Formats: sequence, C-alpha cells, structure tokens
Amino acid sequence: MELKWDDRGLITSVVQDAITGEVLMTAFMNVEALRRTQASGQAWFWSRSRGELWHKGATSGHVMRVREVWADCDGDALLLKVEAAGPACHTGEKSCFFTKVGGR
Amino acid sequence: MELKWDDRGLITSVVQDAITGEVLMTAFMNVEALRRTQASGQAWFWSRSRGELWHKGATSGHVMRVREVWADCDGDALLLKVEAAGPACHTGEKSCFFTKVGGR
Repeated sequence: MELKWDDRGLITSVVQDAITGEVLMTAFMNVEALRRTQASGQAWFWSRSRGELWHKGATSGHVMRVREVWADCDGDALLLKVEAAGPACHTGEKSCFFTKVGGR
Repeated sequence: MELKWDDRGLITSVVQDAITGEVLMTAFMNVEALRRTQASGQAWFWSRSRGELWHKGATSGHVMRVREVWADCDGDALLLKVEAAGPACHTGEKSCFFTKVGGR
C-alpha cells in the first residue's frame, strides 16, 4: 500500500478504541510519526500547532498502545486501533467527539 | 460549536457505522454538504477530485442515513454515525479501511 502524503507531508489519522470501537480523535501523522508509532507500538503524531512530533500521552501519561494500523482504499487516511491509558481528549473527555452538531 | 473550515472551506469527516461501530471512510464536507446532510438526513460530501458536491450513494444506491453528527473538541473534524445501505467503499468492501499497514 502506497500512502499518499499531502503537500505538507501529512496524512489524516483516525484513532479508534480497539475494545469499545469508540472514535477517539483525529490527528495528523508524517512519515516519522508513523515510523515511531510502528517502532514503539505507541501513537505518535505531528502537531501542526506546535510544529513538532508529538508522542501522545508523553506528558499526561495517557499513552495509546497501537494494536493495528489500517490504510484506506486510496491511501490518504489511516485508522489506528488503540488501547488508551486514559482520556484521548485534552479536556478530560474520553473522546474528542463529545459535541453534538445541531440539526440531527 | 463553531466549526473550523480549512483554507479550502473543508472539514474532515469520519464516517462510522452507527450499529457496528466500524469506521467506514473519511471524506470532506463543505458548508453546503453539511447543510444538505442535515436537511436530508443522508450523507453529502465534497469531492475534491471531481470538484463537486457528492451525494454518497446517489449512483450506487448505497446511501447513508445519518443518525448523528458530532464535532471534535477544537471543531476541525466531524464524526457521522450512519446506517449504510451497502458497502461504503467503491471497491465493494464494507469499509474503505481494509488494508493493514505493515509493521504492526
């Protein structure tokens, strides 16, 4: 599978709880974040706001153990199935998707 | 919740099967795709390759009934919980994420 990195060298990554199936967050990876994720078995991302590699949970202790990485059919998105040691969201919520959008 | 559209006017949308929890695909929405999704209860996206609004399943019949739309904590991603009338992927696979990435 040839991954398609965008013009910033990034790929969208969806993070899903491997046990409950809950979608926890989305983040970007670059080549080095994916390499470190595969080497360490813990989730690494690229922080656009900080402009640096981001070892998820390095400060909070809420690391994510990555069980599986899947690519989508056109290679421009990844799905990480993880075991999370704590909340995925910086707000303390388990998932970043805790706000319902009106209408439906 | 103030949504953050990127400089192309798009937001990443993760589509999840509302029943099984399986992550089916990611796609982009613009304001009009979200409006039509909310108005119709069926998933609409923005096709970057075709440069047009895309009523998912309009040709295949595999429309997606949208049960819920959630925004993430910083408003730059959406999660759609859907009931899919057929495969989400153009390959015929149920989910676009059917390719395991090596290493883990």
